[in-house]
Amino acid sequence: MAPLRYLSARLAQQIDEELMGPLGAFSLDQLMELAGLSCAQAVERVYRRDKYPRVLVCCGPGNQGGDGLVAARHLGMFGYQPTIYMPKPGSKDHYKRLQSQCDNMKIPTLPPSNELEPLQSALRSSDLILDAIFGFSFQGPIRAPFDSALPLIAQSGLPIVSVDIPSGWHVEKGNAEGASPLNPDVLVSLTAPKEGVKGFKGRHFLGGRFIPKALEEKYELNLPPYPGSDQIVELPYVEPSETQTQKM
Amino acid sequence: MAPLRYLSARLAQQIDEELMGPLGAFSLDQLMELAGLSCAQAVERVYRRDKYPRVLVCCGPGNQGGDGLVAARHLGMFGYQPTIYMPKPGSKDHYKRLQSQCDNMKIPTLPPSNELEPLQSALRSSDLILDAIFGFSFQGPIRAPFDSALPLIAQSGLPIVSVDIPSGWHVEKGNAEGASPLNPDVLVSLTAPKEGVKGFKGRHFLGGRFIPKALEEKYELNLPPYPGSDQIVELPYVEPSETQTQKM
Repeated sequence: MAPLRYLSARLAQQIDEELMGPLGAFSLDQLMELAGLSCAQAVERVYRRDKYPRVLVCCGPGNQGGDGLVAARHLGMFGYQPTIYMPKPGSKDHYKRLQSQCDNMKIPTLPPSNELEPLQSALRSSDLILDAIFGFSFQGPIRAPFDSALPLIAQSGLPIVSVDIPSGWHVEKGNAEGASPLNPDVLVSLTAPKEGVKGFKGRHFLGGRFIPKALEEKYELNLPPYPGSDQIVELPYVEPSETQTQKM
Repeated sequence: MAPLRYLSARLAQQIDEELMGPLGAFSLDQLMELAGLSCAQAVERVYRRDKYPRVLVCCGPGNQGGDGLVAARHLGMFGYQPTIYMPKPGSKDHYKRLQSQCDNMKIPTLPPSNELEPLQSALRSSDLILDAIFGFSFQGPIRAPFDSALPLIAQSGLPIVSVDIPSGWHVEKGNAEGASPLNPDVLVSLTAPKEGVKGFKGRHFLGGRFIPKALEEKYELNLPPYPGSDQIVELPYVEPSETQTQKM
């Protein structure tokens, strides 16, 4: 079987647009719902809620943060005790609705601010981090308050599950230059993994089980089969040299 | 623990409105996505895709049909071979998008028509029925072409999974008067079961895992816990007399 394709930032963006264009016809609400659900399912698969009940869900201001809010809500439904760290709430309507949904689930959110004390305090009373700060449209540099928040998160020693791409990593070059202090234990790639996570050594899941066959074939994604009705599939470790790179 | 509440049509409608109002803040797209996913998950739980690959998904023109279209798409993702019977396609924009999503998945749809021959032919080459024709807003009588289609579906002898309420059953009185020929093997109640399915003797699942605690408490739904990250939970058989009826 042809190897799984790893996406450039541009191709990831293009596939996202196709999913909401004629070849997909999805709404952003649908895609985020399934993406966030798959992140929550990956957390549940690796970190049992009786041992890791308190999940600090760290959300950026963009669609990545939206996935985090959806995941936080589902984690609440699964019986975890999520708390949201979202120092720069997104301004778009769908982001605000996702926030309201979490509020309605009585999921606490730290006060939005550039101050670090609330984050430090929350880290001391968490068992696990879900990192949904920056996604495939991140271009750096890391701005305040995230430039200070990422080191604190890394230094907490808590296990980290990153959504799509670890925050601060370059989407294509990864973290070779060490721009990000994050080195997550688990990664949930959405739709298809990005070039920058080739050779990722932690547990790696693929989520976002919504790619129509026509789209998969057009971009030669070579996605692996998902088991049963699961919204995630675990990916084996592959050497960077074994992976197919972006050609389109 | 207080018994699970069974809903009247009016209360089911009210809870649906609350889910999209301030207490829920959900969009219809999100609710349908999760409801349809839970239906597909129930099919996958009971009818293995290697033994029952060909699922005829029967959709009405309303939101129930929309749930069916979402389920059909997920069944396609799960490796089943769904076909859609939708003689009266819904006219709303979100319904049309759900149709396009199925088209993009290359899921075939029988030509919309009142003629019965395509349905008869499809029944002969199906292994399983997913009944998403009428939901909790159905008030009867059963109109063409469903007045003829339901008996054909029942007479096919194929196993039937019904969404929310078996089509043609009275939402509160059930099928005591025999208005519907359908007697499904599996039922997937959404958000909470309806009064008319008290004493349902087949396998009964609850799906639609998105009710905020505040809403659950306001309506004293007493929902059972869902296992892990599943979108469904199987309900035990309860005698009609054991169940709590609608008081509000």
